[in-house]
Amino acid sequence: MGNVVDKTYRDIKSMRVRGALDIAIAASKTLKRVVNSDAKSTHQLIQGMTRAGKKLKSARPTAVSLPNAINYILHTADKNSHIEPEEFRRKLSGEIDKFIMEQKSALSRIAEIGANIIEDNDLILTHCNSDTVNMLIERAWDDGKKIKVVCTETRPRYQGHITAKELSTHGIPTTLIVDSAAHLAMKELKIDKVIVGADTIYASGDMVNKIGTSQIALCARELDIDFIVAAESIKFSPQSLMGSMVKIEERDPAEVIKSGKLPGVKVLNPAFDITNAEHIDIFITEFGVVPPGAVYHLLREKFGWELGI
Amino acid sequence: MGNVVDKTYRDIKSMRVRGALDIAIAASKTLKRVVNSDAKSTHQLIQGMTRAGKKLKSARPTAVSLPNAINYILHTADKNSHIEPEEFRRKLSGEIDKFIMEQKSALSRIAEIGANIIEDNDLILTHCNSDTVNMLIERAWDDGKKIKVVCTETRPRYQGHITAKELSTHGIPTTLIVDSAAHLAMKELKIDKVIVGADTIYASGDMVNKIGTSQIALCARELDIDFIVAAESIKFSPQSLMGSMVKIEERDPAEVIKSGKLPGVKVLNPAFDITNAEHIDIFITEFGVVPPGAVYHLLREKFGWELGI
Amino acid sequence: MGNVVDKTYRDIKSMRVRGALDIAIAASKTLKRVVNSDAKSTHQLIQGMTRAGKKLKSARPTAVSLPNAINYILHTADKNSHIEPEEFRRKLSGEIDKFIMEQKSALSRIAEIGANIIEDNDLILTHCNSDTVNMLIERAWDDGKKIKVVCTETRPRYQGHITAKELSTHGIPTTLIVDSAAHLAMKELKIDKVIVGADTIYASGDMVNKIGTSQIALCARELDIDFIVAAESIKFSPQSLMGSMVKIEERDPAEVIKSGKLPGVKVLNPAFDITNAEHIDIFITEFGVVPPGAVYHLLREKFGWELGI
Amino acid sequence: MGNVVDKTYRDIKSMRVRGALDIAIAASKTLKRVVNSDAKSTHQLIQGMTRAGKKLKSARPTAVSLPNAINYILHTADKNSHIEPEEFRRKLSGEIDKFIMEQKSALSRIAEIGANIIEDNDLILTHCNSDTVNMLIERAWDDGKKIKVVCTETRPRYQGHITAKELSTHGIPTTLIVDSAAHLAMKELKIDKVIVGADTIYASGDMVNKIGTSQIALCARELDIDFIVAAESIKFSPQSLMGSMVKIEERDPAEVIKSGKLPGVKVLNPAFDITNAEHIDIFITEFGVVPPGAVYHLLREKFGWELGI
Amino acid sequence: MGNVVDKTYRDIKSMRVRGALDIAIAASKTLKRVVNSDAKSTHQLIQGMTRAGKKLKSARPTAVSLPNAINYILHTADKNSHIEPEEFRRKLSGEIDKFIMEQKSALSRIAEIGANIIEDNDLILTHCNSDTVNMLIERAWDDGKKIKVVCTETRPRYQGHITAKELSTHGIPTTLIVDSAAHLAMKELKIDKVIVGADTIYASGDMVNKIGTSQIALCARELDIDFIVAAESIKFSPQSLMGSMVKIEERDPAEVIKSGKLPGVKVLNPAFDITNAEHIDIFITEFGVVPPGAVYHLLREKFGWELGI
Amino acid sequence: MGNVVDKTYRDIKSMRVRGALDIAIAASKTLKRVVNSDAKSTHQLIQGMTRAGKKLKSARPTAVSLPNAINYILHTADKNSHIEPEEFRRKLSGEIDKFIMEQKSALSRIAEIGANIIEDNDLILTHCNSDTVNMLIERAWDDGKKIKVVCTETRPRYQGHITAKELSTHGIPTTLIVDSAAHLAMKELKIDKVIVGADTIYASGDMVNKIGTSQIALCARELDIDFIVAAESIKFSPQSLMGSMVKIEERDPAEVIKSGKLPGVKVLNPAFDITNAEHIDIFITEFGVVPPGAVYHLLREKFGWELGI
Repeated sequence: MGNVVDKTYRDIKSMRVRGALDIAIAASKTLKRVVNSDAKSTHQLIQGMTRAGKKLKSARPTAVSLPNAINYILHTADKNSHIEPEEFRRKLSGEIDKFIMEQKSALSRIAEIGANIIEDNDLILTHCNSDTVNMLIERAWDDGKKIKVVCTETRPRYQGHITAKELSTHGIPTTLIVDSAAHLAMKELKIDKVIVGADTIYASGDMVNKIGTSQIALCARELDIDFIVAAESIKFSPQSLMGSMVKIEERDPAEVIKSGKLPGVKVLNPAFDITNAEHIDIFITEFGVVPPGAVYHLLREKFGWELGI
Repeated sequence: MGNVVDKTYRDIKSMRVRGALDIAIAASKTLKRVVNSDAKSTHQLIQGMTRAGKKLKSARPTAVSLPNAINYILHTADKNSHIEPEEFRRKLSGEIDKFIMEQKSALSRIAEIGANIIEDNDLILTHCNSDTVNMLIERAWDDGKKIKVVCTETRPRYQGHITAKELSTHGIPTTLIVDSAAHLAMKELKIDKVIVGADTIYASGDMVNKIGTSQIALCARELDIDFIVAAESIKFSPQSLMGSMVKIEERDPAEVIKSGKLPGVKVLNPAFDITNAEHIDIFITEFGVVPPGAVYHLLREKFGWELGI
Repeated sequence: MGNVVDKTYRDIKSMRVRGALDIAIAASKTLKRVVNSDAKSTHQLIQGMTRAGKKLKSARPTAVSLPNAINYILHTADKNSHIEPEEFRRKLSGEIDKFIMEQKSALSRIAEIGANIIEDNDLILTHCNSDTVNMLIERAWDDGKKIKVVCTETRPRYQGHITAKELSTHGIPTTLIVDSAAHLAMKELKIDKVIVGADTIYASGDMVNKIGTSQIALCARELDIDFIVAAESIKFSPQSLMGSMVKIEERDPAEVIKSGKLPGVKVLNPAFDITNAEHIDIFITEFGVVPPGAVYHLLREKFGWELGI
Repeated sequence: MGNVVDKTYRDIKSMRVRGALDIAIAASKTLKRVVNSDAKSTHQLIQGMTRAGKKLKSARPTAVSLPNAINYILHTADKNSHIEPEEFRRKLSGEIDKFIMEQKSALSRIAEIGANIIEDNDLILTHCNSDTVNMLIERAWDDGKKIKVVCTETRPRYQGHITAKELSTHGIPTTLIVDSAAHLAMKELKIDKVIVGADTIYASGDMVNKIGTSQIALCARELDIDFIVAAESIKFSPQSLMGSMVKIEERDPAEVIKSGKLPGVKVLNPAFDITNAEHIDIFITEFGVVPPGAVYHLLREKFGWELGI
Repeated sequence: MGNVVDKTYRDIKSMRVRGALDIAIAASKTLKRVVNSDAKSTHQLIQGMTRAGKKLKSARPTAVSLPNAINYILHTADKNSHIEPEEFRRKLSGEIDKFIMEQKSALSRIAEIGANIIEDNDLILTHCNSDTVNMLIERAWDDGKKIKVVCTETRPRYQGHITAKELSTHGIPTTLIVDSAAHLAMKELKIDKVIVGADTIYASGDMVNKIGTSQIALCARELDIDFIVAAESIKFSPQSLMGSMVKIEERDPAEVIKSGKLPGVKVLNPAFDITNAEHIDIFITEFGVVPPGAVYHLLREKFGWELGI
Repeated sequence: MGNVVDKTYRDIKSMRVRGALDIAIAASKTLKRVVNSDAKSTHQLIQGMTRAGKKLKSARPTAVSLPNAINYILHTADKNSHIEPEEFRRKLSGEIDKFIMEQKSALSRIAEIGANIIEDNDLILTHCNSDTVNMLIERAWDDGKKIKVVCTETRPRYQGHITAKELSTHGIPTTLIVDSAAHLAMKELKIDKVIVGADTIYASGDMVNKIGTSQIALCARELDIDFIVAAESIKFSPQSLMGSMVKIEERDPAEVIKSGKLPGVKVLNPAFDITNAEHIDIFITEFGVVPPGAVYHLLREKFGWELGI
């Protein structure tokens, strides 16, 4: 069993498996393998799952979908700890399959809602590269809406190029800008909607996303442009209910300038920033259109048991 | 004479001579050469100056310091059109020398004022690369103020690297960030002041500067950080009194992505954006600390004669 | 049966029956008639109800209370599809009666809450004509509060005249203004509260109401005046959870100018506009005082089953 | 002489002569007639002018162009009180002619500047009916700019119909809306610029204009749309330097509803409201593009002598 | 029994017992005494509890924790009215003990969450004196966070001195300022977080707290400083669901100036003010981090039964 | 002569002479005494004046009226350095008398303008104690306006008591509040205007006044209440043109708490704070109603010669 867990652990750690959804699914499938191991008692099975879960969670501490998936499955295991091993295996396998299915259908539900919100002839600005956002933009296009998209290049790693390539290949007219041109583009091109993804969403309705998101949100507010976040509920942070915030990752200076190019100059290279709830109009989740003030109760519904509230 | 004019024309056009001040001085010196040509009458001298001025102005239509310098000198010539050629040459040469001197002393006056405004331990954010801003930051440092500077890299041409290198070489602790990290840096590092240069300043108090400036100004307003523009009055636009605005230059897409890298993706690459007067706290000019509402009268004082007001 | 359904359909279409509450009740009573028809099986009864519901819903596609009432009753029918026809008739009739009763009591509950919120000597501004708003203002007056009301005339159809007449007839000192005088009246007369009705309320907390409402909300925010929306939950839009927004109705130009009066001039005559959640302080509903961020969960509680969430 | 003065007085009072410019010119021409009367001494001429001026000013106390014109001419008379009658007549007549000429050329200068500011394909919203605004929009159209205009109907007197008719007759695509649709039109149609006239402009940069202007300005700020006021300097209020504000005229209720139609309902019918300086981007005057903060010094330049500052 | 109730009544009225928690506990214990009286029937027991509750509630009508505790216990009694007296006593005693326990653990839960939110080196500003706030600040300090606190003196009763003394005695570096220095301190000292308590929290997310809180919240918004309210859910106002607001207490003028010191000068001495939901970032409650928009549903969860919603 | 200078120096230093106007007059009169000393040459007279001026300026470095008066008089002396001693004495004495007269008449001019701005039934809030503000409020009252005033107590030195006493003795209905009640009073009592004085006014339009002023300005902006500053131009800071700002004075902790009362608690007791230009509607000066953007040119008019601009 250890081998399976170790492999998933390494895949997540090395980012061979990446993306909130793929990470959650990989971890879930691994736990399903553990459930189906040949331990003699339900107690031993749960112990094995707990050990595996702990190991897996350590692979990428800042990816909130990882502990969310694992904790949910362990919680389900606990609720069934009184069942005989055979039935436990069947029950848990079923629950894990259902959980995986729900995560996958969340994406298509979000795409469906997003495509409803996008109107014909909309000009959309997005930042960085989000599978969720791309899927919903493509869905709107496939529904026959004549939309156009403006992508920021998203320094320092240029994820905006990936977005531009994907949307453009899909046939959607796509324009690329440098990050500094976001305000001008929003004002001069008369952007209709800003749609971005999220890394982590807090109980307060604030959210963590790629560096640069918060200043785009400020510009959208100034110009009264809808600022929309598309994200599955697996990105909600239960720990934020208890006031624990994600530590903003500081990344390698070499992403910004080649090492040694500007000796004596320090580089600050934060990966994410925080966009305030008051600058977000709506979240699109698999539970529909959610205003920031409603994230709290959704979080409690899904993950409140973790905290006893 | 044509040779001298042509050479300056080519130098400005090819950007061998660049920077608002250097352009203004090059044009002024060229006109001084024209004044000292051997035409027989004052009338002919003025005709020669007018021709030369017209040619020079066409070298870089969007650099406001160029017509400002030339128009000022031609205006001075007109006022002295009744004088005999010999005295006209002497008078005009003196006036041009004085004009050049004033432009040079403007820079050091701005540096002096700026260094007064900067306080010990200030953390300053700047965008792009402005000689005026660098000079005043260095002056504050030389005055013994223990300041630190954060520079944006300023995509697509990375002029922030030049700024970082210059300030860092001067001994000032300097940090480089991507443009998208401006908001986070302002908030998390607790930036004290944003100081930027200007390309063109309008009668309304709005100003044109490197793409990205306007969204930094929005962030500064949100966080109640002083947003300061350092610029010589040679950058004031007399035409803005008559409602004529600078056309924002659209630059080569290849600055953003190598040609052919993202086929089908359009690139929008504006060089400048406009920062609203209401987001600017003060201009530092050679006429002291100027709030946006006071630019109008300074403009009329200096250039109102062009428009008969 | 068809006759009854057709008549209600025509009454709603021709606006002989109008107002969110009256429409909902008329449709509910019609479905009760269908339930009590002499079909032989529960299955046939439900088929009849479904057909009738579909027809009725088409009478006025933008009146959200109509599908809300019908869908709720059909949902109740579905839940009881296993019951024998006789009992099904009794059960459904009872449920429909209860539903109608709840809608009626919603109005008086809102009036009661609204009258609590209104304070003695309050000066209230309202826009257009809302039965709900009028009832709560009159309730406050009947409770002995010495209030005054300012009504906008509400071009182009002057519904403000109806409001003014009704309140004035009730004895309440009432002042009429043109729509353009709203900002001045709010500022100079020191309006205490703005209270308006709603046509449709979205999951996001945004709401649709008579054209002009959104700019009154902006003025209220500028002046820090409470902006209060009084509306029954039957006006919540379940479709907004899925991102579907009401299409703003464009009405007959002749409401604005007599046809032919201004040849060559186009008329734009939208019936409604959208007020952003951030400009709304509270909704008064039969579920109490509800901030915009809490509409989402109320909507899910009441109508989430429609969408499987 | 009294006949001439009386006739002008009656023309202005009865609004046969109306519009800031026409009133100023009528008063100026009347004073020119008084100057050319056959009084024996300069002293008597000035006395006659003073009497005539006082009478004329009482014809319409709130039209600021009236006292501005008269006071300017009387001030010029005072400065020339030492001159012999014959020369005084010649001098004053010349000065009055020059003053009239300046007022007329102010209009065309404003139109020229305004047409520079309007860009090709601009969608412009205006409120009420201003000759100055119409002239500048038509000038932009005649310059070949493909613009469109949205006019509010401007209740209660529907001056927007006059604007719509005039612009439409000029060939400009024109759309009419009710006043309440301003916010929706600005947002949904993506209005580029709001351009309105002014009745009176204060030293503070605040301005008085037709009721409804201030709420349009608020909407423009919310949406970051340029809010532009086109007005000749004859509308600047010297008394505002001393803190005296215009009394907002309360007009006949019958403009709003036919008398007796809504017994018991009071009507509030203010003619004007005040737009705050902070909601105005620029004034277009014959002295160029003027930000609100610069009105103070223009006022002192033109009228400061009235107040000894 | 009367004696016990009377004593608690007097203790609360005279403020010998004070603080939301202590009041709730005193009332709860008193009702437990009443439950354990020797009445013969459950009906009589409930009657006694109702009488006692009514008396106790009148002791301090504005302290919302008092009716909240009593109503909760009476509600629990009602639900058990069908039980025999002996078991009723046992059941109710247990429920009351549990209720008291929950109130106590709420405090420590809030402290735990608050300590998570406070970051190392934070500079915190607080106003007035709140046990909840003090406890969470001390918890953060005890967790090893090197924080500093700025306390306002909180005129007129100087409760800030109590806060300063307590925190300082705990070893936390504490600075005292006058209330008027709050804005300067927030800006110049770069306060990281404002944390205050609450007296009453409304369904709308607005909250009532010590006079001066609302202007500190405005300053925090201007400077984009987190404004955090720490309060147990016992301070939620169920009546606010029905639109009933707390009457702001007007206190003795002698708290402000000695009687007779300024004859002819009136004193206005309100004890509390209202901070708008839009100026509050989060509430910290025993149910975790709660944004203002989520208070409504928490209120309904806990106290909705009082209002039948 | 030294005696006279020393005495004035001591009077100013010890605050026996205080208030911007009284300080300026005392210094001016002292220089007049020096002018009339028996030096033999104009050169010697100017040397004496310069020495005296330097000494006097050191008496209270932060009182801007002191150097303003002295520098003005020394500047006048310099311009007349070519005149013979006798005439110099006469000329300078006259100029100084005129200067003193102007300062005195400035006050009454401001009172006159302020009384124009105050409207009948206005409710005015003021902070701290300003002779200029009191004079203009009393002038409005004497003009028959039925106004009322709310004074903050102005901790820590309670200067609001002086204001309350003076206005109340004048017969004006006056209410006293603690500083923390400013926001509530502005909102609940519906304050019409906030009027405060100033210590120093900057070229940027920002101004320095008693601690607490800046947060009152924020509240006024939030509630859209006019925020008016009444101040003579002698309070304009010429140094601010060069970027030099006043150092905010930190005063004795014993003003806040008795020494030793709260051992271990630090006290921060700043005397002043800075109100941003954007939160000020107008300045009332002897040059009329001045918006913040116009201070720059007034400053240059009056004091630009000091800086060579």
